[in-house]
Amino acid sequence: MSQQHLDSLRAIVGETHVLCGTDALPFERDYRGVYFGKALGVVRPANTLEVSSVMAYCHTNNLPVVPQGGNTSLLGGSVPDGMGTSIVLSLARLNRVRALDTVNATMTVDAGVTLNQARATAEQAGVLFPLRIGSEGSCQIGGNLSTNAGGTAVVRYGNMRDLVLGLEVVLPDGRIWNGLRGLRKDNAGYDLKHLFIGTEGTLGVITAAVLKLFPVARSVSCAFLGLQTPEDALAVFSMLRRHLGTDVTAFELISSDAMTLVLSHLTNRSSPLADTHPWYVLVETSSNADQTDAEAQLLAALSDAMDLGHVTDAAMAANARQAAEFWLIREEISDAQTKARGSVRCDISVPLSSIPEFIRETTIKVRSIAPEARMIVYGHIGDGNVHFNPLRPNHTSADTFVATHGNHIASVIDHAASALDGSISAEHGIGVAKRDALGSVRSREELEISWAIKRALDPFNLLNPGKVLPTLSK
Amino acid sequence: MSQQHLDSLRAIVGETHVLCGTDALPFERDYRGVYFGKALGVVRPANTLEVSSVMAYCHTNNLPVVPQGGNTSLLGGSVPDGMGTSIVLSLARLNRVRALDTVNATMTVDAGVTLNQARATAEQAGVLFPLRIGSEGSCQIGGNLSTNAGGTAVVRYGNMRDLVLGLEVVLPDGRIWNGLRGLRKDNAGYDLKHLFIGTEGTLGVITAAVLKLFPVARSVSCAFLGLQTPEDALAVFSMLRRHLGTDVTAFELISSDAMTLVLSHLTNRSSPLADTHPWYVLVETSSNADQTDAEAQLLAALSDAMDLGHVTDAAMAANARQAAEFWLIREEISDAQTKARGSVRCDISVPLSSIPEFIRETTIKVRSIAPEARMIVYGHIGDGNVHFNPLRPNHTSADTFVATHGNHIASVIDHAASALDGSISAEHGIGVAKRDALGSVRSREELEISWAIKRALDPFNLLNPGKVLPTLSK
Repeated sequence: MSQQHLDSLRAIVGETHVLCGTDALPFERDYRGVYFGKALGVVRPANTLEVSSVMAYCHTNNLPVVPQGGNTSLLGGSVPDGMGTSIVLSLARLNRVRALDTVNATMTVDAGVTLNQARATAEQAGVLFPLRIGSEGSCQIGGNLSTNAGGTAVVRYGNMRDLVLGLEVVLPDGRIWNGLRGLRKDNAGYDLKHLFIGTEGTLGVITAAVLKLFPVARSVSCAFLGLQTPEDALAVFSMLRRHLGTDVTAFELISSDAMTLVLSHLTNRSSPLADTHPWYVLVETSSNADQTDAEAQLLAALSDAMDLGHVTDAAMAANARQAAEFWLIREEISDAQTKARGSVRCDISVPLSSIPEFIRETTIKVRSIAPEARMIVYGHIGDGNVHFNPLRPNHTSADTFVATHGNHIASVIDHAASALDGSISAEHGIGVAKRDALGSVRSREELEISWAIKRALDPFNLLNPGKVLPTLSK
Repeated sequence: MSQQHLDSLRAIVGETHVLCGTDALPFERDYRGVYFGKALGVVRPANTLEVSSVMAYCHTNNLPVVPQGGNTSLLGGSVPDGMGTSIVLSLARLNRVRALDTVNATMTVDAGVTLNQARATAEQAGVLFPLRIGSEGSCQIGGNLSTNAGGTAVVRYGNMRDLVLGLEVVLPDGRIWNGLRGLRKDNAGYDLKHLFIGTEGTLGVITAAVLKLFPVARSVSCAFLGLQTPEDALAVFSMLRRHLGTDVTAFELISSDAMTLVLSHLTNRSSPLADTHPWYVLVETSSNADQTDAEAQLLAALSDAMDLGHVTDAAMAANARQAAEFWLIREEISDAQTKARGSVRCDISVPLSSIPEFIRETTIKVRSIAPEARMIVYGHIGDGNVHFNPLRPNHTSADTFVATHGNHIASVIDHAASALDGSISAEHGIGVAKRDALGSVRSREELEISWAIKRALDPFNLLNPGKVLPTLSK
């Protein structure tokens, strides 16, 4: 029977584009190797029509389908379960840029176009596609949409949801919805695209999108700050927003433990600041002013913040190369943790005004569980998004630390965020990893509405089953 | 039976808050007097719990419910049908500002807070709530959300959908969904708020919202331009976006016929420009630079446009009072049409790059139907949104013009927009007026998905029945 399914799917996408056995392995596990599964086969359609045919076949034959983009999910959203009955539907071959319209400031791309490719295509046309996340070399636009990717430029440009005007989607039964409209205003009926953005492939398969493009800023300025407390970081952010408005493009917090870790990981780098500080902030602004004026504006705002005692020390990037070095420190924290092994990774958000309380209270709670854990705390605090990732002490093994404290710490952090009206997943989504946690923090009404939508669009629960939505108790 | 229902509803909201007979009249027709209906009664709950009880009662007793905010809809979305069996649910008494958090830059307001009240509350706190539409004195936040209001500042700040972080919604059966989260990043599960934004009260009743606030711009600059063609207007818009980036806050096109009409309506005003021109543009920028620098930046960009021949004449507003006079011309076009009587009002959008073609082709088509019609064409062309409103010639009566040509012209305009991948309703929504037209321009898949969502949330079709969704042919 399985063989018959695979043969039928080969008839749709071609002999070489259904992978099994060892060829399928890279699609059955996430890139970090944390989540594993087993697929009936990996199907790689070439275009929307083939996606439609594959979906129709799977629908008729009751085969679960796991859509997969760059497979860079951190929470297992893009890998199949262990049953070996699902089809992994790879969108990688849908990789054309279909159109670019600089007057309308839009770009229509297939779902499998990588984020880097999308950014580079825009750049070549003299415009900006502003999404910026760590995995941009391999993640794909379809995955960015399905997970509503965030990253480091959300303060100014918004999340992926804010960067899209239209979608093309294949529904669970194979019907194609063509909603590829490039309109900034469109109130003609229900805005269906929002059903498919951030729902992690559980309602439909995104095959193409119309993305918004932006003017390239005339100048970009970058500074690295040393501060005493998260309260100071928040005060600086408020001051910068008052002085520089929406020019503030990124505002990234880094804890002292995170700084120590990443500098030991980047063996040939040193801190941009002479001394150590309890907290650091990386700030970036984009401006219509020329470089000199824009830097002067940022400096003026930062001197005010220093006069008020909110900033202890500051270094301005002298040029783009130095700015890239500042950014490297921020961006390598993730890999530094992976290499160090034994961290409990979280991705919460709270209202900005609650960030200091969240960090203070959570630090106390985590210390009461694991007194010597290193507090790798960083994130996009201009959006209220904190990665609070306690790391094993040097003398404790990764396995012991995670086995002993992992679940407890993660649960403490989730509940601290929820208690402050926050989210247990700011930008990483739910996948399988946080599905049950979602059930414990969201209201029954919220879960019931979500399931009602799921049943309406995917009545047989064939699309990415087991992801996102927790089982509802009776 | 009707009396029994009204008594039961009075028991929920209080004796004086169920209106019938002449008291109900203002709620049974829209403010322009174009759409009429008849309600069983008008129910005015005081808070979310009362809304919930009213909805539960109506659900149990199979009573249709028409949610109503400021009743400023242009397409009949907020008035009941003529059956006399519906409850009009007025949200006007839910009018508290619940919270304002300047650090998180959010404001939590009841649905019945007027847009003016929301704007003024933000202003008093030194921040900006940027939605700007003509009816801001009477329209309410709940209505702004239900219709995804647009207006004149969308180029910079987006539509109402982009200005909200969280919602509180009462479902058709009375359950309350509390999604009042003030988070800039939240990917924990389906983002349900988008189900209720822009669906015109057909899926739930919005009772409160967390709105996004913005820094107040340091300076606002305003200019009035005379141009030869829509192509020129588009070229100027592109140049301004390149020079001034997202500082461009409004970019409004006005046709020569619209200018003539509004100036004769505003008897004591004259054009900001000495000569007449085929087209005009009102442009506004908001900047972090001081007034002098910001005006210099705008002027520099405009001189470049003049050098290239895209702008024939330009006047900069010397101060805020003069800017308000410029804006008055733009804002009074709507009332000037109402007073002139006999216009076919449309609200289409197309990709920006198609605006010149749309205006050119549609003008030809309308002239072939009504050669002497005045072409009242204006709108937010920075968003691709054009109000293309042919007006009767002076010597034809309003009734004759509309009766003879109204439907034909409206249909020609809708189809011209659709043929260019545009929308038949950029910002006004669908209501009852454009419901059947929606059926003729949207794909079967799109309508099927919409109905699937409607059935999932409102299985008995009790919430604003007959609005938005066209009947699906078998």
